[in-house]
Amino acid sequence: MYVSHLSCPKCSKTYESEALIQLCECGSPLLVEYDLEKVASVLSKEMLKDRKPDLWRYLELLPVKNKNNIINLGEGMTPLLHLKRLGKEIGLENLYLKDEGIIPTGTFKARGAAVGVSRAKELGVEVLAMPTNGNAGAAWAVYCAAAGIKSVIVMPEDAPPIPRGECAISGSELYLVKGLISDAGKIVAQAVADYGWYDASTLKEPYRIEGKKTMGLELAEQFNWEVPDVIIYPTGGGVGIIGIYKGLKELQQMGWIGDKMPRLVSVQSTGCAPIVEAWEQKKTESVFWENAQTLAFGITVPKALGDFLVLDAIYKTDGCAVAVDDDQILTAEEMLASREGTFVCPEGAANLSAALKLQDEGWIKADEKVVLLNTGSGLKYPETVQVEPPVLEKGSQLPAD
Amino acid sequence: MYVSHLSCPKCSKTYESEALIQLCECGSPLLVEYDLEKVASVLSKEMLKDRKPDLWRYLELLPVKNKNNIINLGEGMTPLLHLKRLGKEIGLENLYLKDEGIIPTGTFKARGAAVGVSRAKELGVEVLAMPTNGNAGAAWAVYCAAAGIKSVIVMPEDAPPIPRGECAISGSELYLVKGLISDAGKIVAQAVADYGWYDASTLKEPYRIEGKKTMGLELAEQFNWEVPDVIIYPTGGGVGIIGIYKGLKELQQMGWIGDKMPRLVSVQSTGCAPIVEAWEQKKTESVFWENAQTLAFGITVPKALGDFLVLDAIYKTDGCAVAVDDDQILTAEEMLASREGTFVCPEGAANLSAALKLQDEGWIKADEKVVLLNTGSGLKYPETVQVEPPVLEKGSQLPAD
Repeated sequence: MYVSHLSCPKCSKTYESEALIQLCECGSPLLVEYDLEKVASVLSKEMLKDRKPDLWRYLELLPVKNKNNIINLGEGMTPLLHLKRLGKEIGLENLYLKDEGIIPTGTFKARGAAVGVSRAKELGVEVLAMPTNGNAGAAWAVYCAAAGIKSVIVMPEDAPPIPRGECAISGSELYLVKGLISDAGKIVAQAVADYGWYDASTLKEPYRIEGKKTMGLELAEQFNWEVPDVIIYPTGGGVGIIGIYKGLKELQQMGWIGDKMPRLVSVQSTGCAPIVEAWEQKKTESVFWENAQTLAFGITVPKALGDFLVLDAIYKTDGCAVAVDDDQILTAEEMLASREGTFVCPEGAANLSAALKLQDEGWIKADEKVVLLNTGSGLKYPETVQVEPPVLEKGSQLPAD
Repeated sequence: MYVSHLSCPKCSKTYESEALIQLCECGSPLLVEYDLEKVASVLSKEMLKDRKPDLWRYLELLPVKNKNNIINLGEGMTPLLHLKRLGKEIGLENLYLKDEGIIPTGTFKARGAAVGVSRAKELGVEVLAMPTNGNAGAAWAVYCAAAGIKSVIVMPEDAPPIPRGECAISGSELYLVKGLISDAGKIVAQAVADYGWYDASTLKEPYRIEGKKTMGLELAEQFNWEVPDVIIYPTGGGVGIIGIYKGLKELQQMGWIGDKMPRLVSVQSTGCAPIVEAWEQKKTESVFWENAQTLAFGITVPKALGDFLVLDAIYKTDGCAVAVDDDQILTAEEMLASREGTFVCPEGAANLSAALKLQDEGWIKADEKVVLLNTGSGLKYPETVQVEPPVLEKGSQLPAD
């Protein structure tokens, strides 16, 4: 393992990495730091060719010491699809979709869970707890099952129902709460304080980001070590965008990619847009969003612990933040399925809505290489599709074309 | 393209491969034949290392002439997981799961659809129709959307609901029928006869098998070109088992694998077990199963057109056929999720029930390398998990561990 230490992006305090640690004393999330010079000396791009197509191919850039602690359900190296038909139609010929629906548990949350749970196992965690909007909880529940760690998951009563089944069948202890993820978070925080459980809340442990950053590593590898111009990302807790930025910075420091960074775009819903509001006001932190509501449930996060890191990544890359509404999201979901055959989640569809808006404003140019990062499969959101097909008797005749 | 011709496995008649053809004159499905000597001379195992981790890496063994016709949503090279915890518990230390839940549309049906639709596009198909138990229809619907082909899908009213949404959002023309897949098949056959549509029913076109056979190719590559001892497969229409057998035979002819073949096991439900019944009676064809019913809806196929090919593959490999009941399936689904974190579909869970039975009978030995081929994600079957979590008020306290 090439981890050198943990560091605080807010107060710069450092911690050694073998202790079970949550936040910095100052309350900020901690980041994992590597001896990148050493990694660059032991790992080559060529070596990757002999490795399996999952995120563990970047083992030297991941925080696990003993391979036996790795819980691998086949997560990572998700498809990068060139959306030729749709791109042509809307005038963005270099439009791509990275499809995180093709991953265990059907969402990108599997990455953070795979790395986070593997490291938790390595550090001796026996019980962990977390609040969730559904998919993260489901992912941590199934990886915990494979690791033999007990998980306690609390999610809003209004969260989409499929993740409940994932938690239940894998033996997790599941609770619903009459409220938002922030309310679930308060319940978990209390339990963690009372019982000494490991707190796996977004960014309250340092290792989830490490899983998420592999999206950035993969994009670089899939584009043959040249980064795209723009990456558009739906933002709830923001770990994905923080992770992608971190991963690409590490590749830069290793000399694997050049100085160019993609402009990172954070997409939120008009029903819950604290990051967008902060960005518009050129602030470095967001304000709690009251009465948050959107069908893109995964990004209903009124105030993210890592908001300052998301905003930093946006500012540093000349990116931006965009809010789109539920109608735009549903239209985009249908456009992607009917033109490209990709059935994405509402959060993923929001990226296309944002791309259309930014293209309209001239912020995205026609020839730019733009990646929509679809965070999950539409299969987990069957309720977003209305369908009432005709019901036929046996022996019926179909109408002509 | 290295396809030489199409051949009939029943009457040995041959057909040229550039015509749009369905069944042989004798009513049998047709198989795609390749110039394997030539393939072996142009393709090496080493070359695969530079190719993407999807099924198109085996392009020389696939029936597409022009790469521009390929519809690729990232299908294939699904994870092969060593089930160490569960294997140890049940006394099968070399137990593996090939997880076809990690694929576009969440089931192995994507393979047949990807290759079948790509070839249909290449041959100029504009409208195709098919009966389905749900997942195949959903897969063909989304690939057709990407190909610009109109699809007409007919499925039983009782089929699980999620595939309906996939069909609808991708613009397919969807119908339900009050009956089984066999009733949907009759309606489609009539429409095909009336309107001249392309019939994409199981095995009524030759190319779906070619997509499915890549599961066999991948297993060989993933086991470093040594086949496992046993492959257990849930059997409805049977295309998967036929395809795996065909793919492995092709690799043998190319000299890429040795003479050893895995014993192929066909798993059905006690509620619909025509192949098992035929195998027990040492017959070469099955009899229509009356009043078919099981929660493993995907294998509710009362009489498969390719039953004789499935039985042939079983006999030739010294395999067998096993029926398991719904209770065993639900138990197995829970075992896989709670020990290994893999949430599989009921059809996939049936494999574990079969493995336990065969181990109990001594048919599978403790040290044998056994692959459970999970055909799809449990996410598409949320109704198989019963869950009623406690609902908390804001500010509630969780119980101690």
